[in-house]
Amino acid sequence: MRTDLIIAGVGGQGSIMAGTLLGTAAVVFDNKKALQTQAYSSELRGGAAVTWVIISDEPIVYPRVVHPDVLVAQAPQAVTRYFPQLKPGGTLIIDSDMIHEPPPNGYRLIQIPSTSIASKEIGNSIVTNLVILGVLIGATRVVSPDAMEKAIRFSVPKSKIDMNLKAFRRGFEFESP
Amino acid sequence: MRTDLIIAGVGGQGSIMAGTLLGTAAVVFDNKKALQTQAYSSELRGGAAVTWVIISDEPIVYPRVVHPDVLVAQAPQAVTRYFPQLKPGGTLIIDSDMIHEPPPNGYRLIQIPSTSIASKEIGNSIVTNLVILGVLIGATRVVSPDAMEKAIRFSVPKSKIDMNLKAFRRGFEFESP
Repeated sequence: MRTDLIIAGVGGQGSIMAGTLLGTAAVVFDNKKALQTQAYSSELRGGAAVTWVIISDEPIVYPRVVHPDVLVAQAPQAVTRYFPQLKPGGTLIIDSDMIHEPPPNGYRLIQIPSTSIASKEIGNSIVTNLVILGVLIGATRVVSPDAMEKAIRFSVPKSKIDMNLKAFRRGFEFESP
Repeated sequence: MRTDLIIAGVGGQGSIMAGTLLGTAAVVFDNKKALQTQAYSSELRGGAAVTWVIISDEPIVYPRVVHPDVLVAQAPQAVTRYFPQLKPGGTLIIDSDMIHEPPPNGYRLIQIPSTSIASKEIGNSIVTNLVILGVLIGATRVVSPDAMEKAIRFSVPKSKIDMNLKAFRRGFEFESP
C-alpha cells in the first residue's frame, strides 16, 4: 500500500509545511514510511512551492548516507551510534560542552563549545545549531557561507534573523582557515 | 563532487533544523543538489534526533513522485503544471478560493474554500494549509487523523497548537465520510 502525493501552491501558503507535517504524522505517529522532497522557485514569497510525498507501508528505497564524510555530534549517544560509520579520514565535529571524550584517532576532529557560545556569547542556547552550522561550513565549505546566510534569511522568522546570523558567523570564524 | 553528512543530537538541539537549513542553502542558493532525510526517536524532547544530508553537484537519484494518486493544488499554476500528471481516477483537492475552473473530469474532485475558512472561521489565513491537510486526510486517510493531530502538537509552537488543530478538524469534517 503506497500513496504518492503532490501538494503545490505559491510561497506563503504553507504547502511545504503541510508536506512536512504529513511525513511526520506518517513516520513518527503512524508507523509508516515516508519520503518527502520539496522545491521552491527562486522567487520567494509568491513563487511556486511544491512538495512531493510518498507514504507507504513498505520501506522506500532511497540513497542513504552509509559512511558519512562528515559527522556532527551534539550528544554523546550520537558519537556512540554514528562514529563507527564515519569514513576513514573523515571530519568529526563535536559540541565539546556535551562530549568530553572524543574517540581516539584516524579522523579530523573539531571541538567547539557551541552550547556555551550560543548561550553566553549570543545570549540564547536555541542558536547552538547555528554555531554548529557555522563551524561545519567554515571547516568543509560543503555549501558557500553566502548561500547559508541567504538560507537563514529565507527560513528564520524576521525578528530572529540577526541572532541566527550572529551565531552562524561566530561558528564560521571559529574554524575558517 | 558529493559530500555525505550526518548531524545527530538529542531533541531540542536543532539538529534537524540544521540539516534543513543546509539543504536549503545547497539547493536554493548554491545551485547544488541535496537530499535530506531525518528521524526522531519516539521520545520527543530529549530523545535522539538525526538528519542525513547528501550534497552533490550531480543529480541524486531517488524515488520521485511521477504520477500522484493525490494532487493538492492551492493555486491555478499548480493545476496547470501538475494536473496532467495525476493518475486516472486520482483525487484532486483544490482551494476553491484560488482556483475557479477545475479541469473537466476523469478524477475525484474535492473543492474547499480553505483560504476563506482559515481567515474567516478560524481567524488567520496562515492555517489555510491545516484546513487543506484536514480535507486531505478526511478524504484519503493517507495517515490517521490521530497521527496528524499528534504531529501538529509535536511540530507547531505551543501557543499556536489550538488554532492549528481547529483548522485541521474543520477541514477533516468538511470531507470525512
